[in-house]
Amino acid sequence: MSQPVDSAVSAVRTYIAQHRAAFLDDLSAWLRIPSVSARPDHASDVRRSADWLAARLGETGFPTAEVWRTPGAPAVYAEWPSADPDAPTVLVYGHHDVQPAAREDGWDSEPFEPVVRGDRLYARGAADDKGQVFFHTLGVRAHLATTGRTTPAVHLKLLIEGEEESGSPHFRALVEQHADRLAADAVIVSDTGMWSEDTPTVCTGMRGLAECEIRLYGPDQDIHSGSFGGAVPNPATAAARLVAALHDEHARVAIPGFYDGVVELTDRERALFTELPFDEREWLRTAKSRGTLGEAGYTTLERIWARPTAEVNGIGGGYQGPGSKTIIPSSAMVKLSFRLVAGQDPEHVREAVRAWVPEQLPEGIRCEISFSPATRPCLTPLDHPALQSVVRAMGRAFEKPVRFTREGGSGPAADLQDVLGAPVLFLGISVPSDGWHAPNEKVELDLLLKGVETSAYLWSDLAEHWRHAP
Amino acid sequence: MSQPVDSAVSAVRTYIAQHRAAFLDDLSAWLRIPSVSARPDHASDVRRSADWLAARLGETGFPTAEVWRTPGAPAVYAEWPSADPDAPTVLVYGHHDVQPAAREDGWDSEPFEPVVRGDRLYARGAADDKGQVFFHTLGVRAHLATTGRTTPAVHLKLLIEGEEESGSPHFRALVEQHADRLAADAVIVSDTGMWSEDTPTVCTGMRGLAECEIRLYGPDQDIHSGSFGGAVPNPATAAARLVAALHDEHARVAIPGFYDGVVELTDRERALFTELPFDEREWLRTAKSRGTLGEAGYTTLERIWARPTAEVNGIGGGYQGPGSKTIIPSSAMVKLSFRLVAGQDPEHVREAVRAWVPEQLPEGIRCEISFSPATRPCLTPLDHPALQSVVRAMGRAFEKPVRFTREGGSGPAADLQDVLGAPVLFLGISVPSDGWHAPNEKVELDLLLKGVETSAYLWSDLAEHWRHAP
Repeated sequence: MSQPVDSAVSAVRTYIAQHRAAFLDDLSAWLRIPSVSARPDHASDVRRSADWLAARLGETGFPTAEVWRTPGAPAVYAEWPSADPDAPTVLVYGHHDVQPAAREDGWDSEPFEPVVRGDRLYARGAADDKGQVFFHTLGVRAHLATTGRTTPAVHLKLLIEGEEESGSPHFRALVEQHADRLAADAVIVSDTGMWSEDTPTVCTGMRGLAECEIRLYGPDQDIHSGSFGGAVPNPATAAARLVAALHDEHARVAIPGFYDGVVELTDRERALFTELPFDEREWLRTAKSRGTLGEAGYTTLERIWARPTAEVNGIGGGYQGPGSKTIIPSSAMVKLSFRLVAGQDPEHVREAVRAWVPEQLPEGIRCEISFSPATRPCLTPLDHPALQSVVRAMGRAFEKPVRFTREGGSGPAADLQDVLGAPVLFLGISVPSDGWHAPNEKVELDLLLKGVETSAYLWSDLAEHWRHAP
Repeated sequence: MSQPVDSAVSAVRTYIAQHRAAFLDDLSAWLRIPSVSARPDHASDVRRSADWLAARLGETGFPTAEVWRTPGAPAVYAEWPSADPDAPTVLVYGHHDVQPAAREDGWDSEPFEPVVRGDRLYARGAADDKGQVFFHTLGVRAHLATTGRTTPAVHLKLLIEGEEESGSPHFRALVEQHADRLAADAVIVSDTGMWSEDTPTVCTGMRGLAECEIRLYGPDQDIHSGSFGGAVPNPATAAARLVAALHDEHARVAIPGFYDGVVELTDRERALFTELPFDEREWLRTAKSRGTLGEAGYTTLERIWARPTAEVNGIGGGYQGPGSKTIIPSSAMVKLSFRLVAGQDPEHVREAVRAWVPEQLPEGIRCEISFSPATRPCLTPLDHPALQSVVRAMGRAFEKPVRFTREGGSGPAADLQDVLGAPVLFLGISVPSDGWHAPNEKVELDLLLKGVETSAYLWSDLAEHWRHAP
């Protein structure tokens, strides 16, 4: 790197070091608010969290910082226009609500009493997602202070929702309602992680999600398996045969049309995945599993990141209590979730499932299929200039090569992509050991400050290498 | 029929009419005891039921009426020797325990609050099996009162067990322990049904039963289906594939060795089945089902009476509550029951299942298989003299030709056959609509009283036409 870059790095680091203590104090104050969106008794805490964040963003310098009400928990919106009218517009997405947490779940300290032990800050939300939202506040201050600017190099917008941990039920409507104000050239999602402490990575896509519940009905009530067994269709058997028919002998999803439109992995992407220090045995420990099983012809990472899947989340029918009950059950139920990848249309998948299910059933078994709202997949092209900016900014902060990952899970980022028509990028510094949704959630302080630093570099880099496409 | 027979019939009917109300009151008192053997929290009720019955049999006149303890639920034994030492000995078998039942399962009234609506008595156990055990108490009183006897025409023994609905785990040992006292020339099982209200029938055989619970284990805890989906084996999927593999495309059980030893139907038996007024559409209504499905090459009656089967009684795994939960579940469970026919050895079937299950599972899925104690199948020769007595007694009571059926269900009768070396006959008055094991179980009062009447005729007929074979 050239000398001017080094001095910029040095200036940013000095600025961050000077403001580190106040930054952590502020973050801790926010973490003390138990903004658990899934629990109605915490609704006022979620509102308090939104108010706190809006006020804090105002103090940071955002000329606009508002709480946006929804029929559920409120979101926070903030906007800081660049003095350069031609600068690109970037929308940062995160969430201020958290998962439930209680000391007795196995926490070593109170989940809503942030505490630093060693190089880690422990609290519910430290990594998911308050810490990762908050690093942008010091990031943008460092950006301004070290570049001598009074406004960011890009038009900066923040949308921090309050229902992510509850499935974002009102998020899409909120985005649609405010689509004009949210308009952006790119969305940066700070609600994911990176490969590990030693391997900074940028995520380039998330899988989508289509979920359904299939109820199968046989006899009008449970009937005696001795009197009738062997002569009428059993809905539990039908459910099992349906699930068994989901995959072919290559563990490919066997529903006709399911793979329609799937964007196949390129050789370059497959090669990039192999650059990651992946240890399958270690991964199996994380998965708490004893074997791998998946679509033939793909590696484990390809299977979880880049291939669509069908999984049974729940199955039930008949007698499940202790002992036995010799019945043919009257009904059975299967909950399926389909992870989708770029190119797949959730509506098309639904139609494929709707057409396929009845064909699997014997005469005498009726079915009802109900779908939950779907989440679309998203994928950022590797050569997108904004993605390159994220990679450069992260590389400067971490002083290491930045690799590429994808995310097997699904998130509301896809709604931003759909409604705003903007590509989605991911900037996260959390690591797998941070314990999202688990007791003793923490954030690595070193990585958190690398997040601040990345944010500080990112806005100038974006403005320099990428212009608003009118 | 000759005049003396008619007067005997008339006397029996008069006697029954006089004692009907008290008989139903007593039966209702017994039905109020929720003797659910499958539920440990009802253990004291099962004991109470045994005590109640022993006391009631004593009041009926049985010189011996004892509660027989077992390591599980107690049985009741009663004995009333004939004054004629050369009379044959008949052992009546039934059970005093019942299936679980709760109002919320779909009962129109409390399952353990017997209620008469129209010509039916509704309660758990009304037909299976308290009602059918109890008709013998009034039957033997009518036999004595109308023949002027002080002891029955046969040596009468009753063995009413308390664990039939739990697979009779201690029954065989109990029979072996008391084999001397239980010694009989024939066993009459009153725990089956007849064809219909209009077609009295005698059952000539029951299927056996082997039951197992298979638990499949995948990840050590539920894991995120986004992060891991498509790459590790899912135990719910494995359970479904196991169940789907149970049957081949001809609906034959696909477990190697399952059919070993099966006694095939004779042409005469197949012809007798066709004498029954079988209306498949009507039968489907009884089965509360919308289609038939079973082993290719057999009629519905042959499938349920004379062919072995495999049924899923329960399946469960993962999230079954409202909404969705995107997990790969850590475990899944399947409860299977196999109905067995004459010639099949339950132990051989168990071994076949034990060998087959692990072969169906992918690497990374562990299984545990636990079997409940099995029940052997049994089959009575059509020309047995005691069977002919049952047919005649039933014919007098019902005033109709008596046809032959088999029973698709299973009972511990086969243990009596094995241990006592006595043929097993079946005398039951329940009809398919009685709802065994289902909500709103009932017994038709008219048929219940025909059961009393049959019992009243049977003992004289047996003593007259059949002698003890020393």
